[in-house]
Amino acid sequence: LNKKNRKGFRKIFLGLHGYEQSQLFSAFDFEQRKLVYTFISPEELANVFDDTEEDPGEMGKYLDEMSDSYVSRLLTEMYTDNVVDIFTNIRPIKRKKYLGLLHTDEANQVRKLIHYEDETAGSLMTTEFIAVNEDQTIGTAMQHVKREAQYAEIIAYIYVTDDVNKLVGVLSVRDLITHPDDVKVTDIMATRVLAVDVNEDQEAIAEQVRDYNFVAIPVVDETEKIVGIITVDDIIDVIDEESAEDYSHLAGVDTETISHNPFQTALKRLPWLITLLFLGMLTATLINHFEGLLSQVSVLAIFISLITGTAGNAGTQSLAVAVRRLATNSHLKIARLILNEVATGIIIGIVTGLCVFVMVGVWKQNFLLGAVVGTAMAGAIFVANLAGSLIPIGMEKIGVDPAVASGPFISTLSDLTSVLIYFNIAQYFLQLFMK
Amino acid sequence: LNKKNRKGFRKIFLGLHGYEQSQLFSAFDFEQRKLVYTFISPEELANVFDDTEEDPGEMGKYLDEMSDSYVSRLLTEMYTDNVVDIFTNIRPIKRKKYLGLLHTDEANQVRKLIHYEDETAGSLMTTEFIAVNEDQTIGTAMQHVKREAQYAEIIAYIYVTDDVNKLVGVLSVRDLITHPDDVKVTDIMATRVLAVDVNEDQEAIAEQVRDYNFVAIPVVDETEKIVGIITVDDIIDVIDEESAEDYSHLAGVDTETISHNPFQTALKRLPWLITLLFLGMLTATLINHFEGLLSQVSVLAIFISLITGTAGNAGTQSLAVAVRRLATNSHLKIARLILNEVATGIIIGIVTGLCVFVMVGVWKQNFLLGAVVGTAMAGAIFVANLAGSLIPIGMEKIGVDPAVASGPFISTLSDLTSVLIYFNIAQYFLQLFMK
Repeated sequence: LNKKNRKGFRKIFLGLHGYEQSQLFSAFDFEQRKLVYTFISPEELANVFDDTEEDPGEMGKYLDEMSDSYVSRLLTEMYTDNVVDIFTNIRPIKRKKYLGLLHTDEANQVRKLIHYEDETAGSLMTTEFIAVNEDQTIGTAMQHVKREAQYAEIIAYIYVTDDVNKLVGVLSVRDLITHPDDVKVTDIMATRVLAVDVNEDQEAIAEQVRDYNFVAIPVVDETEKIVGIITVDDIIDVIDEESAEDYSHLAGVDTETISHNPFQTALKRLPWLITLLFLGMLTATLINHFEGLLSQVSVLAIFISLITGTAGNAGTQSLAVAVRRLATNSHLKIARLILNEVATGIIIGIVTGLCVFVMVGVWKQNFLLGAVVGTAMAGAIFVANLAGSLIPIGMEKIGVDPAVASGPFISTLSDLTSVLIYFNIAQYFLQLFMK
Repeated sequence: LNKKNRKGFRKIFLGLHGYEQSQLFSAFDFEQRKLVYTFISPEELANVFDDTEEDPGEMGKYLDEMSDSYVSRLLTEMYTDNVVDIFTNIRPIKRKKYLGLLHTDEANQVRKLIHYEDETAGSLMTTEFIAVNEDQTIGTAMQHVKREAQYAEIIAYIYVTDDVNKLVGVLSVRDLITHPDDVKVTDIMATRVLAVDVNEDQEAIAEQVRDYNFVAIPVVDETEKIVGIITVDDIIDVIDEESAEDYSHLAGVDTETISHNPFQTALKRLPWLITLLFLGMLTATLINHFEGLLSQVSVLAIFISLITGTAGNAGTQSLAVAVRRLATNSHLKIARLILNEVATGIIIGIVTGLCVFVMVGVWKQNFLLGAVVGTAMAGAIFVANLAGSLIPIGMEKIGVDPAVASGPFISTLSDLTSVLIYFNIAQYFLQLFMK
């Protein structure tokens, strides 16, 4: 495929979709890439760089392999948001060098975009949008769109601005082609334009785009001037990223970074495990404290793992529900959520406790023991359930993303509270009935 | 807002975006909705029904409140995919009645769509797309688009078909407006069109749309005829739905259906908890089996929850990683994943085991006990880790969605194996050193 056969390679490669090209390109080795740089023009390769799903830092490394003029033409042709993505993922010294290769205009735009904080509208947006002045007619607007279409990332919406560049309306390309040339833009544009602030958080933007079914949303600065647009493909990446983050947090491990080296994989999981090990040691110390009771009534040991395990499961459930509710519902009444969880915890605790009371009572032919284990189970579940919802709510209140409260953390914490409840109840019953 | 003031209400309501209208509409009570049906034409209300994020079954109930002719005009104006969504969520008798209110053409289309299986391309697609014949020129194609634009759900792509309706190419609206009228469609269209089969699974389609950054993807039947398109807004809903499903499964609870009744909430969580309770009872029985050992060396009881808890955490981590890998990477080498997990399990087991050995040894001034707990910990982690990846892989092999293997299940299962390993090792050490 990739010999000195320039023509054949170009024919096949350029016939592919940008994403397929990028997959092929990423699979090439250094020598093959060198060949690609001579076969494929930088303008053509820009398509590959725009459509890749690879890590931007990786893409940045390829720039070092190209000549300066090749890099310059490549970056100029790419959409600004993708250039910024690469630039924020390479070392500052390289960034400075590549910025020098861009035209002053473009370099200034990129410089501005780089400074927006990660995970905000500014860092997601692209500046290649189409805007027309409100004084124009459909005919002149259409001429403008025809000229700009090849540079714009998306042409579904044409934004309408006033003389100081303030966003005053929006037209769809559908409006544009279905109305006669002499109609004024202001007569058919929608004047209620939903726009997001450059500093808005990406999760909130993703929610808006999803709810409103937009393919792009305009971004405005503090003076309501339009400074960019965020397109739906970037929004999909945000949604993917956020849900992968939630999933990873629930499991207490980063599930997205793939490493084929077991040492690295282990290194990624150990910190959290060892941290929880200390919490687990606390539980062990607690049981140790009750060793007297335990040696007196050794049958109690049999049900430690039953109680801690079930309470941990209930806690994980309630944690997951609370995290999702906080994430998907911003107008949530916290008091109501807590009240609902308290009631749910009581019901689940009582039902499970009764089951355990019967099971243990019948099995051990000892309903006093059944009562101890059942009551402890009910209490442990209630506390774990409450902790599962209070911890994420508390984190949200102090401004920490509640998704960092993980399932393993809740179940290890509930081990501690469960043991505490179990042995105290056992001791109480013992004093009550045995003496 | 909603008095006899028809004009004022129309002005405000129609100025809102469809999604906002639908939110407002859902908040109305029966009397208010009755008023809406007289103030707002069915064609205008179709916009509300198309853009809602509410449950389609709920939307279906509103149809009962309208007159037959109102329903007929409303459903005719709505996009077919949304009509189908509602129809699949209402009772068959109602469905039949409403189908009778549609024009024969439309009714037949809806009937066909209803029969596609849930979660396939057929059930997601809409039939409102724009297609032109390959013999046309840009000029005639543009005329066609202008006529059809108001009916199409999205006009970003114009599909090109041959005389028997087979999909042979695609044009973007950008191509259409930037090329002169006399150019032939076949000269500028892209001939490599990515299309999905009507029976394709929604998760695979979502992946394609995400990777290729499409705003819509065409759906073809077995004869390669184009039968519909799936738009990016429906893809976003699929992505949301699938990730919420994965999250729910990991937590062992449906986190999406919100209920404000604690009894219902409890009822949703109890089945899984009680099931796991039986598994937990098995573990209790196992500990019971070792009661002799336990009463002899009562210090062993102290570390039960430490070992089961830590192994459960490691198992949950490895489960989450395996589920995500299976979901996001279809070309995965299973053997490699297992080998990597085995190696990771060994490393994590040894490191954690050593930590525990030292901690227990120092604390209890008994390094033999430290060795027992440490070795048991290493073994329990290794087994839990392996189970965490083997169970989802095995489920994938037998065709079950691996995401149904939940964190609580893995940690409860690992309680059992951990206890088994712990007491066997303790017994072995005891025989070795004590006798």
